[in-house]
Amino acid sequence: MQSSAYQKLEERFRRLKALSEAEAILQWDLATMMPHGGAAGRAEQLAELKAVQHGILTAAEVADLIGEAESQSNLDAEQQANLNEIKRNWVHATALPEDLVIALSKAESACEHVWRTARANADFSLVRPKLEVLLSIVKDVASAKADQLNLSLYDALLDQYEPGMRSDEIDKEFSELESFLPAFLNRVLEHQARQSPAVQPQGPFPVKKQKALGMQFMQALGFDFDYGRLDVSLHPFSGGTTDDLRITTRYDESDFTSSLMGVLHETGHALYDKGLPKNWRSQPAGDARGMGMHESQSLLIEMQVCRSRAFLEYASPIIANAFNGAGPAWEVDNLYKLYTRVTPDFIRVDADEVTYPAHVIVRYRLEKAMIEGDLSVEDLPGAWNDLMKSLLGLTPPSDREGCLQDIHWYDGAWGYFPTYTLGAMMAAQIFQAATQSDVDIIPGIRQGNFKPLMSWLHQNIHNKGSLFSTNEILTQATGKPLDANVYKAHLENRYLN
Amino acid sequence: MQSSAYQKLEERFRRLKALSEAEAILQWDLATMMPHGGAAGRAEQLAELKAVQHGILTAAEVADLIGEAESQSNLDAEQQANLNEIKRNWVHATALPEDLVIALSKAESACEHVWRTARANADFSLVRPKLEVLLSIVKDVASAKADQLNLSLYDALLDQYEPGMRSDEIDKEFSELESFLPAFLNRVLEHQARQSPAVQPQGPFPVKKQKALGMQFMQALGFDFDYGRLDVSLHPFSGGTTDDLRITTRYDESDFTSSLMGVLHETGHALYDKGLPKNWRSQPAGDARGMGMHESQSLLIEMQVCRSRAFLEYASPIIANAFNGAGPAWEVDNLYKLYTRVTPDFIRVDADEVTYPAHVIVRYRLEKAMIEGDLSVEDLPGAWNDLMKSLLGLTPPSDREGCLQDIHWYDGAWGYFPTYTLGAMMAAQIFQAATQSDVDIIPGIRQGNFKPLMSWLHQNIHNKGSLFSTNEILTQATGKPLDANVYKAHLENRYLN
Repeated sequence: MQSSAYQKLEERFRRLKALSEAEAILQWDLATMMPHGGAAGRAEQLAELKAVQHGILTAAEVADLIGEAESQSNLDAEQQANLNEIKRNWVHATALPEDLVIALSKAESACEHVWRTARANADFSLVRPKLEVLLSIVKDVASAKADQLNLSLYDALLDQYEPGMRSDEIDKEFSELESFLPAFLNRVLEHQARQSPAVQPQGPFPVKKQKALGMQFMQALGFDFDYGRLDVSLHPFSGGTTDDLRITTRYDESDFTSSLMGVLHETGHALYDKGLPKNWRSQPAGDARGMGMHESQSLLIEMQVCRSRAFLEYASPIIANAFNGAGPAWEVDNLYKLYTRVTPDFIRVDADEVTYPAHVIVRYRLEKAMIEGDLSVEDLPGAWNDLMKSLLGLTPPSDREGCLQDIHWYDGAWGYFPTYTLGAMMAAQIFQAATQSDVDIIPGIRQGNFKPLMSWLHQNIHNKGSLFSTNEILTQATGKPLDANVYKAHLENRYLN
Repeated sequence: MQSSAYQKLEERFRRLKALSEAEAILQWDLATMMPHGGAAGRAEQLAELKAVQHGILTAAEVADLIGEAESQSNLDAEQQANLNEIKRNWVHATALPEDLVIALSKAESACEHVWRTARANADFSLVRPKLEVLLSIVKDVASAKADQLNLSLYDALLDQYEPGMRSDEIDKEFSELESFLPAFLNRVLEHQARQSPAVQPQGPFPVKKQKALGMQFMQALGFDFDYGRLDVSLHPFSGGTTDDLRITTRYDESDFTSSLMGVLHETGHALYDKGLPKNWRSQPAGDARGMGMHESQSLLIEMQVCRSRAFLEYASPIIANAFNGAGPAWEVDNLYKLYTRVTPDFIRVDADEVTYPAHVIVRYRLEKAMIEGDLSVEDLPGAWNDLMKSLLGLTPPSDREGCLQDIHWYDGAWGYFPTYTLGAMMAAQIFQAATQSDVDIIPGIRQGNFKPLMSWLHQNIHNKGSLFSTNEILTQATGKPLDANVYKAHLENRYLN
């Protein structure tokens, strides 16, 4: 039997999926296992893999196949959704010539590699030349995609991570947060000052014990180590493939709290990937919906669930037992205080829920200015420090705690940062809907039974993959599109009561 | 400037090299890091990577480019050698249609995955169906290549691993060994029986200490951990890329000796890869010459160097110190006895130098018979046991110590086994030439200074890559082509004196 145009596209995307999974494992290896000397060769490998995928995706016959498939009348709704995603991928890819894809990949690898040294040495000047090269190529990418998609430079990049999202809407959401958060932060800090302070459990906390504890909670949440791993990297992430989930963390032997919550955060990402629709595993419709939705699932697990009192009622004795801890520092009240403590500080990944949006707004404004040509790489450290001062009242002691702290720009992920705060807002909205829909969820969490929660998330979020748009998924799951008020209500409820 | 046909071929092979390196890292990951559940996805990834390489290598224009390049008069001798290797790769690849390449890759992944369980359970029947499928595909590959290369089925497979080698020559070398070894083994065992027996150092030997000791010797030999790693796998191997060398071992906490020598063996492989000609890094001329030469470099380090008295004079105090060992078991004489002890046994990778060829001959005869259709997979366990009985006088207690012990057939590497013994013969010949050419090599080894040895090997073997044939390299380095007499003389010298 002759394959239809649609079937031929599916076959082509099955091949692309296998190659993108290969790339994901190589990226994981680069961050966790690869010796220093492998960097140049790995850059070649990744660039070639990207070029091959680009070639498969932009081959001349794909345009015809898409045209033919669009006129096929026998596609069901899911196939139609898949075809839309196929086209979306294709439109983005055909905007770029192959040499630009290769140049981007190599510039990303080269810049990221030097960033590791620059960050360790708190010396922005080491990485500045590579970042200038990378930004220039990213701007070429933005320009090519902006033409193809009829979008602004920044929106063309943003659309890669958050399909359909535009900076107009982000500006609106972020300015609302900006008008709400400073006064709110002051109220929280005043409220907090009236409480007795949280007590820091005393270490040392050996890495081995921290890892075992993290794995125990991962398993409780539903992470299956037959289908994934937990390792160490400089910048924690969730990677790999849907049946080979690779999450990473970093350990501090004097303080287990940050790494543990980091592991739970990445577990949220991994559980989303694991729950993507199995029938669509090899197709774009089976991909994560966008980075905002992805982040919503990590933040839902971390912020909504694991920093809640209900979770800590279950977890506190397990944590205390893991480190042979006893006394007030290990009790629920204190751990809850620790895990909801609000402290303006320099590092985004360690930031609390209340100050986190300010970190994102700093990055969003700076990257937008750089992409639009209003800020040079040379002026980045100064501009960073100015914005941090204005938004959080802090000046980083060095660029390590400033503009060198995150991997994203150095890795080529421009237009990505806003999805963190979109994710935080979605997480609040989704968790509220889940707990209203199934009253067993919170009691389950309190007992370490995450099945009601995960079952609801699987059905309403994970298993939707990219079969619907972000706002469609949100509306189906919560009854409305993105609504910042739920997030604000969550913050007020948690931090002022 | 217009690229010449030859330059276009180089560019195409640069791309192929990057993809084959990506594949090497994924294979390493599969054996060391990948969780069980990743197997099916990984099989897809590897098959797709192979299909992509096959497509690049067999594209219609390559035939024309090779034809044009062959008539270019401006190629120097090294470029000419590279063009020969390009053509060799191309001829092998064009013998196979893409669907056979994909089927082979998937059957290899599927069979290897089940082999792990079958071996652990000592149950051949678990893997028999997958092995039958794989063998049938391997025979299709052999048949397609035999037609293209005008070779017998077995020789067509052998030529993949040992270019230019034919089973006629192997039959000749192996029958010479068969007429020499049984009587020699008896003399060795009698000679050994007259000595006091070796004493086994008493453990436990913690993995951490074994690993640190292995790494210390690896570094002494010239392995640079900025360009490589040491990890654990079920079947030890040397993989990765020339600047990201990944060697593996397995540890036994009750006996450090086997793992340590295994690490040194794999280090020999890795140092060969590291020493391949840098100018030809991305081209076939920069590849290892063949698996016989590759094995000669691991066996030279393991058998000729590290099991020598000279090496153990340097190494014994370091070994004793690593495990806080003291007394006769830790002295040079005893460790030398241990490391040159001859004991007919079941497991090839643990076999001594004298009985090792018998293990290889068993496998060579069986795989040849299976490829030629004279032995079925069903009859393999019985045939294995019969041959082991006839050649070594032993009957394995189960198939785990019999036909399930090696990964090779289950991983699709048919026609590979003879290269082990070719390598052993080459190793003796090369080491003799090296030590005759530079009298500082042996005193260097005695002091833990491997620079004279590695410098000679680099110049005479490693840096030749595939710029010459195996016999050309041997003749340039040792004054003659492969000569089994040097190997026999080495055995007599070491095991009867």
